[in-house]
Amino acid sequence: MPPVNPSRGMRDFLPADKRRRDLVLDAIRSTYRSYGFDEIETPVVEDSSRLHAGLGGDNEKLAFAIMKRALTVDDLRAADAPLDLADLGLRFDLTVPLARFYASHRGELPTVFRSIQIAPVWRAERPQKGRYRQFVQCDIDIIGEPGALAEIELLTATSAVLERLGIERATIRINDRRILLALLAHWQVPIDRFDPALVIIDKLDKIGVDGVVAELAEIDVPREGLAEQLGELAHADWSIGRAAPDWLDTEAFADLVALRDAIPGAEIEFDPTLVRGMGYYTGTIFEVAHPDFGYSLGGGGRYDGMIGRFLGQDVPAAGFSLGFERLVDLVTLDTGDAGGLALVYDRSLDPVDLVRLQGELVARGRRVRLERRAKNFSNQLASLGAAGYTEFAAVREAGVSAEELEIREIG
Amino acid sequence: MPPVNPSRGMRDFLPADKRRRDLVLDAIRSTYRSYGFDEIETPVVEDSSRLHAGLGGDNEKLAFAIMKRALTVDDLRAADAPLDLADLGLRFDLTVPLARFYASHRGELPTVFRSIQIAPVWRAERPQKGRYRQFVQCDIDIIGEPGALAEIELLTATSAVLERLGIERATIRINDRRILLALLAHWQVPIDRFDPALVIIDKLDKIGVDGVVAELAEIDVPREGLAEQLGELAHADWSIGRAAPDWLDTEAFADLVALRDAIPGAEIEFDPTLVRGMGYYTGTIFEVAHPDFGYSLGGGGRYDGMIGRFLGQDVPAAGFSLGFERLVDLVTLDTGDAGGLALVYDRSLDPVDLVRLQGELVARGRRVRLERRAKNFSNQLASLGAAGYTEFAAVREAGVSAEELEIREIG
Repeated sequence: MPPVNPSRGMRDFLPADKRRRDLVLDAIRSTYRSYGFDEIETPVVEDSSRLHAGLGGDNEKLAFAIMKRALTVDDLRAADAPLDLADLGLRFDLTVPLARFYASHRGELPTVFRSIQIAPVWRAERPQKGRYRQFVQCDIDIIGEPGALAEIELLTATSAVLERLGIERATIRINDRRILLALLAHWQVPIDRFDPALVIIDKLDKIGVDGVVAELAEIDVPREGLAEQLGELAHADWSIGRAAPDWLDTEAFADLVALRDAIPGAEIEFDPTLVRGMGYYTGTIFEVAHPDFGYSLGGGGRYDGMIGRFLGQDVPAAGFSLGFERLVDLVTLDTGDAGGLALVYDRSLDPVDLVRLQGELVARGRRVRLERRAKNFSNQLASLGAAGYTEFAAVREAGVSAEELEIREIG
Repeated sequence: MPPVNPSRGMRDFLPADKRRRDLVLDAIRSTYRSYGFDEIETPVVEDSSRLHAGLGGDNEKLAFAIMKRALTVDDLRAADAPLDLADLGLRFDLTVPLARFYASHRGELPTVFRSIQIAPVWRAERPQKGRYRQFVQCDIDIIGEPGALAEIELLTATSAVLERLGIERATIRINDRRILLALLAHWQVPIDRFDPALVIIDKLDKIGVDGVVAELAEIDVPREGLAEQLGELAHADWSIGRAAPDWLDTEAFADLVALRDAIPGAEIEFDPTLVRGMGYYTGTIFEVAHPDFGYSLGGGGRYDGMIGRFLGQDVPAAGFSLGFERLVDLVTLDTGDAGGLALVYDRSLDPVDLVRLQGELVARGRRVRLERRAKNFSNQLASLGAAGYTEFAAVREAGVSAEELEIREIG
């Protein structure tokens, strides 16, 4: 027999899990919709050339590759590299597909397009606790709005989602790519080492000040005074604006203060060491942090140059992606099934009668499961209760009508 | 620039399409749920060994194969066949994953498990009008019920779905694998040619009686009297029970009559030439036909032996699969968005004010899109109307409250 577990790093969802996940996704979807975002869908599969166009950062290396059809053994012998045999792949994020989608359909979309994408992505990572090879992302993006309105809408709608889901203690950390670049310039980092330097600074949480200083030295960023400045950065908050150190891009900082003040309901922290992995960000960057997790619940930012890679013409854009798998564990939303009714029937009864009776009850708006009476009846009721059924009725003779049923509560 | 179309045979869904599809899927889901079915989810990706275990019929050849990670050029040189380089693949149906899921989780599921799966599948078919490489199937299955109750529930719930979607003129054609096998025995077809003979009979619609007779002759099924019998079969209906020709398995036929009578609301036809492609069916088989389509809208049947391939122990099962892509085109369900409100604002206004105003309206249960006033205002209103917005309000000065807005209808 073949093995019966899901493939490595993938998961099955049983009815209760599936139901809970779908109700949480519906809450996210309807909240974003109320703020005027519209849901779209793109195929799970994208052309290899698009997945490996340099827009996915390190995630490109994690893409599952789909083999060309009708390959021969000669094709295998002739190939220069494994990827020569692949023409398609599974998407590793929802941003690359969105950029392609927008470039393809721009004429059919509003001038300012607010998209929702709620869908799985795949990454061939080494599976570990809480990290899966198929997982759901919830992305919103605003394409075509160059002003701060985009950031305010993204953060307001996402705060509303967190509130709707009953997630407390989440904070939004923000920074601006311009602040990071000014900092690197201040440290006299050569421009060709900006990207690796940012990757190193991004590790501050994990490797600490000394680790960052050491790794920066390896790429020839001089260490004089760096440790003190990094220590200061790691503990920086909004009060840094009053001191206005000479590395601070004050214009970008003022924009962040204005953004914070625009969203009074949310807890927003300034973090000048916040990097976010993707190289395509051009302005504001943000991340949702929660004390229960070392990783962020999501993040995003402004990426004005990226759509142009597919469109041949720059279009301003900003987006926010929630990592659903971490989020769903925090949700306190009630996902119970009100009104489930089990008809517990005796084996001898005519199935035609039973389904007719079920149909009468369904027509009255009930959710009804037919359930053959088990030998251990109290066990059976406990299982029904666990499956979300709140009531049952015993059916012991033929021809019973819905009115004649004696409906009892479970539990 | 990379190309911007979806990959060959795949589709993007714009907001109106996506919304319509989701509302139809919700209607299907909630109707099946009301009949006591529970939704599950399995990964999009399955191990190659499971996809190529002989349970998928011709669809196995259409599976997209996913390459092993970290392959080297030496691996390519050493491979005996392209599939040696693949360890995973995209599922081509929802039945193989269900059988694996059930074998893996049986202990956590009810004795009789009624599942819903609503999810995409992938087949590397030559794309043509109305046929896609990624498409959604809606499957229900009942595992663990050996009696006719399973078939009655499947057909009753599916009839309720078709009614809920407003699909009229659909008929359900039924047959029984036992009737087909008795027919082949009557024709003295050798048992080792049953499968190819059924594949040929399945083509009766397309190649006609003469075509079937000719192809049967090619596999040495004698042609004497065959054309007359086939002609008779192609026009058979329930009245054949009165004549009871000697090829008819009368016990199986009586079961079909009882099944028909159990579902008074549905149009059910007997079709002794109905085959359904999959070899795993063991009893009743059915198909939903609609006069607008040459293909069926869906189908299914009893497959008592299949789950055992994964479990090592036979479990009775029957299922029904609706092809969503054909169905959605027939649906007359109203999918309009009631209550969408566009705030049409002047460029000069403060975005903080605008988002605050939006928030006030969202808190009152409205769906609100912020929309910068365009030069051509009547065009803009027409686009908003097409996007499902029914009302708008102009915002021309700072600090307007929700009460002060003058809300007008669009159109």
